[in-house]
Amino acid sequence: MADLKISRELSLAQAAQGVMAMAHFAGARHWVPATSGNFSVRMDEKLAALTATGADKAHLTEGEVIAAEIVGAKHPRASAEAPLHLARYASEPAIGAIAHIHSMPATLLSRRHEKAGVFRLEGWELLKAFSGVTTHETLLEVPIVPNDQDTDRLATLVEARMGEGGPHAPGYLIAGHGLYVWGATAKEVLRHMEAFDFLLTAALHEEDAR
Amino acid sequence: MADLKISRELSLAQAAQGVMAMAHFAGARHWVPATSGNFSVRMDEKLAALTATGADKAHLTEGEVIAAEIVGAKHPRASAEAPLHLARYASEPAIGAIAHIHSMPATLLSRRHEKAGVFRLEGWELLKAFSGVTTHETLLEVPIVPNDQDTDRLATLVEARMGEGGPHAPGYLIAGHGLYVWGATAKEVLRHMEAFDFLLTAALHEEDAR
Amino acid sequence: MADLKISRELSLAQAAQGVMAMAHFAGARHWVPATSGNFSVRMDEKLAALTATGADKAHLTEGEVIAAEIVGAKHPRASAEAPLHLARYASEPAIGAIAHIHSMPATLLSRRHEKAGVFRLEGWELLKAFSGVTTHETLLEVPIVPNDQDTDRLATLVEARMGEGGPHAPGYLIAGHGLYVWGATAKEVLRHMEAFDFLLTAALHEEDAR
Amino acid sequence: MADLKISRELSLAQAAQGVMAMAHFAGARHWVPATSGNFSVRMDEKLAALTATGADKAHLTEGEVIAAEIVGAKHPRASAEAPLHLARYASEPAIGAIAHIHSMPATLLSRRHEKAGVFRLEGWELLKAFSGVTTHETLLEVPIVPNDQDTDRLATLVEARMGEGGPHAPGYLIAGHGLYVWGATAKEVLRHMEAFDFLLTAALHEEDAR
Repeated sequence: MADLKISRELSLAQAAQGVMAMAHFAGARHWVPATSGNFSVRMDEKLAALTATGADKAHLTEGEVIAAEIVGAKHPRASAEAPLHLARYASEPAIGAIAHIHSMPATLLSRRHEKAGVFRLEGWELLKAFSGVTTHETLLEVPIVPNDQDTDRLATLVEARMGEGGPHAPGYLIAGHGLYVWGATAKEVLRHMEAFDFLLTAALHEEDAR
Repeated sequence: MADLKISRELSLAQAAQGVMAMAHFAGARHWVPATSGNFSVRMDEKLAALTATGADKAHLTEGEVIAAEIVGAKHPRASAEAPLHLARYASEPAIGAIAHIHSMPATLLSRRHEKAGVFRLEGWELLKAFSGVTTHETLLEVPIVPNDQDTDRLATLVEARMGEGGPHAPGYLIAGHGLYVWGATAKEVLRHMEAFDFLLTAALHEEDAR
Repeated sequence: MADLKISRELSLAQAAQGVMAMAHFAGARHWVPATSGNFSVRMDEKLAALTATGADKAHLTEGEVIAAEIVGAKHPRASAEAPLHLARYASEPAIGAIAHIHSMPATLLSRRHEKAGVFRLEGWELLKAFSGVTTHETLLEVPIVPNDQDTDRLATLVEARMGEGGPHAPGYLIAGHGLYVWGATAKEVLRHMEAFDFLLTAALHEEDAR
Repeated sequence: MADLKISRELSLAQAAQGVMAMAHFAGARHWVPATSGNFSVRMDEKLAALTATGADKAHLTEGEVIAAEIVGAKHPRASAEAPLHLARYASEPAIGAIAHIHSMPATLLSRRHEKAGVFRLEGWELLKAFSGVTTHETLLEVPIVPNDQDTDRLATLVEARMGEGGPHAPGYLIAGHGLYVWGATAKEVLRHMEAFDFLLTAALHEEDAR
């Protein structure tokens, strides 16, 4: 077990490669407009590599990735949304990487369904792109929480909501704000980001055409 | 005739060039989100080159293309959707290449018209992009089959449906899933993919505006 | 005057540069899907450089541009739509270049308004991108003709329609088919293509939202 | 104080770098179709670097950027819209750069809400991309003025409108025409342009779906 654990540990430089891969992909798809969005990769049980505040994620460089304690004092260069990343790592040991993006359909649906507090995805083949899903005959819930500039309070609310309902897709929406999405690795998060954008685009179109 | 036949045979390396051309084109157009989609080129009467399971089609490499028997034992690296490709080759000797993509209008229309079991394209000049069509005054049927994770059963259903109705466009839709499209060569499939995406985008817009 | 005239004459190689510039720009914008579209530049009073039949315009090469007589025998490699280009050069000496593209809003509006036979653009600042327009307080007509596989007959109809109504934008629509657009030079046609696509996208959106 | 002032002065060559950065970014996003749009960077209290008339902004070169007096005689190569840039610099000393773009949602909303004379943005997280905004619980006004080919008269109207109502987003709309957007530096204007395009796209979609 000790060996297995060591083999999963990443240096900051290694983790920053995954952070940059997610950030550059999201930038190319216009999912992090106006320097928004942030990205992280777990280094081990105690640390995660995070995008620093103020960085332009579409052109992120290694020096703009910091190592933050998952539970502990705030890093001086941490972005305001760092607590939302770190709380997820603290709650779910299987999470290895997290992306926060402002994809247009995510932003629109998050605001439209804020009162319901949840958006449901059902019946699409592309649900199988989410790790662990083996059939389109699946209904997944995406929790929606109200936006809040107090991100410590918001993180507490999110973690409470993740314990309710379900089964959940690997993500949640903040109303009028955007999408958080996670996976075991940065590569899996790349796949999950693209799946969410496709599924939410399709679902938004279906709603609008009704 | 023997010479003619030999001249149409392709090595795995040659066929893989066509598979990669289709995959990279579809990737650049965002038609294979989240590692979805698959592509194949017929090598001869008995074999077809297919994308292996798990590959990221937008960045497909030659080593991710396998030679599968059209009728015979399943290749260990074949994707779950291999039977849908192979059944088409077995049914129609003139088919030389096949693409499966998740273009957004294909996915939306396939789900909206699942009960009708067919989508009709009529009157567009771009119908002439389909091999054999010489005038816009044409009505082509695109069969729609329900989605099914048992792809052997789904392939049998599809081949039965291709024998009914018509005339058919060179493709069919799987509800909530995506589009299969074929042609004599990989180059023709590139043209057919782009024609389907354009025609289905236009048709979807017309329906939504009604 | 003789000098002036000579200075306006272009060799096939010179004219092909303009043809390729228009074709590559349209390809990058997905306005010539599935090898559709065609482009031309006037060489002198008698000849025009035209895209040959069957070429993929997004990747057009110089060898795929032919010199066709404006009035005379059909060139063996001329595309089926060559008469529509040549008739415009014969009718209007000021036309130096022509593009035919399948932009999505052009295709949709051409079919929606086929019965009216005309689409009107009014009040947009970008109308000033059309040569000779100096204010947004302008109403321009874009004629719409029914589609016809007999392009000699269609060209005759188009030239008759250009003599009616107006003032005209530098283009016309063929129903369910696409847009023809012209200008004094290939560079001007690049500007006119982009202006039409923007204006028709905006106008389509306004109609749909009503 | 004198030192501070000197450190904020830019040579024409330095200012042209900012002008080109904004123009190339806007070109890549198709916000300056058909050679439309224009860009400027303040050099000091008296001068601003401006795109010259007739330039293709997507491919702007340094030689197409001129130094114009903020208050004074018109530069012979100034574009027709130069007064709209210069009046903003004269009114607000904190403005260091200005962009004028024709983004599609800006153009559509400017025409739809011309009679109201204002468009309101409220509740979106991305409002925080505008300098000085610290919470999504913000309502910003975007003034809309009627289009006018007399840009001296239009500039006077705009500056009067900027003194009314508010708080204002860092931009205004000209009906059926496009968006003006400003900031302290060219880099800030890049962020503000992208924020406006995202926010207006989202707001337009919400209106259309009602």
